[in-house]
Amino acid sequence: MNVSEAVLRELVDSGVEACFANPGTSEMHLVASFDRVGGLRPILGLFEGVCTGAADGYARMKDKPAATLLHLGPGLGNGFANLHNAKRAHSRVINIVGDHATYHRKYDAPLQSDIHSIAKPVSDWIGDPATPAEAVSLAHEAVEIAMRPNGGLATMIVPADIAWTTMQSAPAHKAVKITKAPVDAAKIKDAARALTSGKPAVLFVGGRVGLERNMRLASAIAAKTGAKLMGDTFVPRTARGGGRAKIDRLPYLGEMALAQMKDFRTCVLVGTKAPVAFFAYPEKPSTFLSPECAVYEPWSPDQDVADVLEALAAELDAKPADAVLATPSEHVIKPGPITAENFGHAFATLLPENAIVTDEAVTAGLWAFIFSEGAAPHDWLTLTGGAIGYGIPVSIGAAVACPDRPVINLQADGSASYTIQGLWTAARENLHTITVLFNNRSYAILNMELDRVGATAQSERSRSLLSLDRPAIDFTSIAKGFGVQAVRASDIDVFQTAFKRAVAEPGPHLIECMM
Amino acid sequence: MNVSEAVLRELVDSGVEACFANPGTSEMHLVASFDRVGGLRPILGLFEGVCTGAADGYARMKDKPAATLLHLGPGLGNGFANLHNAKRAHSRVINIVGDHATYHRKYDAPLQSDIHSIAKPVSDWIGDPATPAEAVSLAHEAVEIAMRPNGGLATMIVPADIAWTTMQSAPAHKAVKITKAPVDAAKIKDAARALTSGKPAVLFVGGRVGLERNMRLASAIAAKTGAKLMGDTFVPRTARGGGRAKIDRLPYLGEMALAQMKDFRTCVLVGTKAPVAFFAYPEKPSTFLSPECAVYEPWSPDQDVADVLEALAAELDAKPADAVLATPSEHVIKPGPITAENFGHAFATLLPENAIVTDEAVTAGLWAFIFSEGAAPHDWLTLTGGAIGYGIPVSIGAAVACPDRPVINLQADGSASYTIQGLWTAARENLHTITVLFNNRSYAILNMELDRVGATAQSERSRSLLSLDRPAIDFTSIAKGFGVQAVRASDIDVFQTAFKRAVAEPGPHLIECMM
Repeated sequence: MNVSEAVLRELVDSGVEACFANPGTSEMHLVASFDRVGGLRPILGLFEGVCTGAADGYARMKDKPAATLLHLGPGLGNGFANLHNAKRAHSRVINIVGDHATYHRKYDAPLQSDIHSIAKPVSDWIGDPATPAEAVSLAHEAVEIAMRPNGGLATMIVPADIAWTTMQSAPAHKAVKITKAPVDAAKIKDAARALTSGKPAVLFVGGRVGLERNMRLASAIAAKTGAKLMGDTFVPRTARGGGRAKIDRLPYLGEMALAQMKDFRTCVLVGTKAPVAFFAYPEKPSTFLSPECAVYEPWSPDQDVADVLEALAAELDAKPADAVLATPSEHVIKPGPITAENFGHAFATLLPENAIVTDEAVTAGLWAFIFSEGAAPHDWLTLTGGAIGYGIPVSIGAAVACPDRPVINLQADGSASYTIQGLWTAARENLHTITVLFNNRSYAILNMELDRVGATAQSERSRSLLSLDRPAIDFTSIAKGFGVQAVRASDIDVFQTAFKRAVAEPGPHLIECMM
Repeated sequence: MNVSEAVLRELVDSGVEACFANPGTSEMHLVASFDRVGGLRPILGLFEGVCTGAADGYARMKDKPAATLLHLGPGLGNGFANLHNAKRAHSRVINIVGDHATYHRKYDAPLQSDIHSIAKPVSDWIGDPATPAEAVSLAHEAVEIAMRPNGGLATMIVPADIAWTTMQSAPAHKAVKITKAPVDAAKIKDAARALTSGKPAVLFVGGRVGLERNMRLASAIAAKTGAKLMGDTFVPRTARGGGRAKIDRLPYLGEMALAQMKDFRTCVLVGTKAPVAFFAYPEKPSTFLSPECAVYEPWSPDQDVADVLEALAAELDAKPADAVLATPSEHVIKPGPITAENFGHAFATLLPENAIVTDEAVTAGLWAFIFSEGAAPHDWLTLTGGAIGYGIPVSIGAAVACPDRPVINLQADGSASYTIQGLWTAARENLHTITVLFNNRSYAILNMELDRVGATAQSERSRSLLSLDRPAIDFTSIAKGFGVQAVRASDIDVFQTAFKRAVAEPGPHLIECMM
């Protein structure tokens, strides 16, 4: 057995099942080891950003670690943006990054680069073994980092000469030690007291609070105390739909967020931090809570949010049955051209039960989210780190994690173009992903943001940076090129027919909605 | 005038003419400034890797700085791999990276990241202004870094609040100071003496030696002294073809490189370092020169290679007329299916005069390079940093730099998939790029490398990481989707007809060669 095989075995023995990969020469021994190590499924992405986004999607849905296999510094660089999103989603991800042989590094060969420097902003931990034995023990440590209560992103560098070294015997696997801090009873009491003090209060939640049972507890706590339940703008995964806990979401637009938050005098945070503006704007505040608002943090990232919510609910005698649940509502779908609004109604009507929704629709998807509050129960995944190009990859990872659930990816055109080659992986793995692509031929949100920062683009030259016409992109043709069934819809009726068929037929689909 | 405008004006006044951009909210004031600053052409890429690769291609062909405009850390991360290539090409590139307002950074908003850490491995210099005045002076400094004799990669961070600050008056522009170290006469004499000592000698060149006049001088020096003239495997840009200096290229395969280099006892380096293996392989050496070979370095990166070659030629009384020139040869194109070999003959026959060739064909392009030694004069650009996904972006930048020259991009399928959205920019800018896409449905080089590192992939599971079938990718369909005329060729005759038409018709083309 060589070190490559021992490292992969260590991952498998620790429960890692999927590896999203785009290897090169320095990873060939790891590739060959997939032959001999069962239980770790390698999935090829045509670009590393597809691999890292897929790992994020997988980790969000399974809440267990996904591995990636990347080719030196540039491969990690290509995966950077979606690792940034994964880190902001608190996902459990283990990057295996191949490197030159240790003795070869000093020659500064063309692909040599400072892997640590690239890895640092997106890693909670970096492993760089100097010996074969250390490689295996670091692989174990990487899993423990990824399994921390609030997630973890571990990047493990594997130099080629270590990877190809033969080991006399495989080291014995130790059980993965998951350490979580106990709930802080005093802080729970403080938070409970604050929520019942009679001052206007908000229970502001995010991160793993989005899991179904956690949501129900959070809703029960809010209902019991009269506090407002508010979710972060970008929660990694939220269980929602009819019969599930109802929750409002902090608006993306700072003006609206401020209006919603400024009157609270008590804020209890679970699973996330106090809300901040996504961007700074001239003369506008960076934060939304009033200076007079007292902030309570009964949760810390080394604790399990479920434990904290259970303790807080117990303290307040709040029961899951106290939760306020979303109820189905009627939708009238106006025939004719596809607009954000009639799409929202059609989507809420047609969403199949138990679907996973990845949302990178930006401006076009706003009503789909709002109208689906009482739709069939589903999970909703968002762009946690703001780095676009997450929708297609994350939908792939979610579909690998949950092969029995359809994954609906609401996808803007501008961000689709970042990681469009991800469609091929959906085709190769025959995943039930339905990419609903909103083709509005512009970075529509940037036209809005241009105005919000107090700037204007008047000339053709500056406006050209915000538009996606000249030429119009034909996503139907591109999707077919990558092996994905695709259809164009210029009308809400055509969309509905195509969507019903896509839900009924396994395998990947793309529906290009012309707006 | 605000700081955004002053920064762009500083670049324009320093001679920067093109900015390859994909901005977001934090760059909106810079976007708006394109309205008021003439002379700086913004070119939109659908992904930052397209922008950075295009900047590299532009800089290689103009030998003057190209700017990029990128969106915070993740935007820079997306551009990382092609910046890695640009740095290895010694290209002159100035990255403008927007960031959150300085006062907003402490809130750790979703897009916050450690930009310095990402920038460091691909930057010779990082500017991070704290004041409006500093922003303008750092922009000036960035140009001076980019204009250093051996190229330079400057990354300038522009926080949003500094970008939108109004300046009382525009600072006066100072001339860009280009400092180059004088030639070291003693080292020139040493090198000249070594080349004429009678020992087997090689003049090993790379970097800016590839420019036409430099090549001719290098060839003359070799001819005059009897030294072998050998070029680096990956030279950023080489002037070659019939009537131009003839040069051998260090083979990519270490075994072949070693065979070519081991017998030399004198090695004179100009424009590059001593050759090293691209990767390490078990039991194979990392370097190719014999321990008994004396190495001379009459050039250093702070000197102009042209000055060094002139001085060395003068010392040896070598004249440009002494150069050994490549001569045209006859090509017989075997009809039938497209193979690497008959493609090479067809390419050498049809290559138009003054073309620019970007080579990311990997295994399929080997013969095209060899057979075109005596073809119509052209420039040949290579994958200097080994990070794939460079061909389409670099061909775009080269076409922007040289609108009167056709750009032929020899493109492997695996690497094309990395930055395929670049085709759209070629369509939007109506660039005369001809992408010859070799569709062999595999990462063919990795199948070879697997064997070379002493590994084997026997199961479907490991082999799946090296193949691009299931499903086959239809690049013709994808190119059309991005607005590029495309045709599929399964036969060398069809290729020739399509290629002739693509050369004759302006605007972008893609020819998918089925192999």
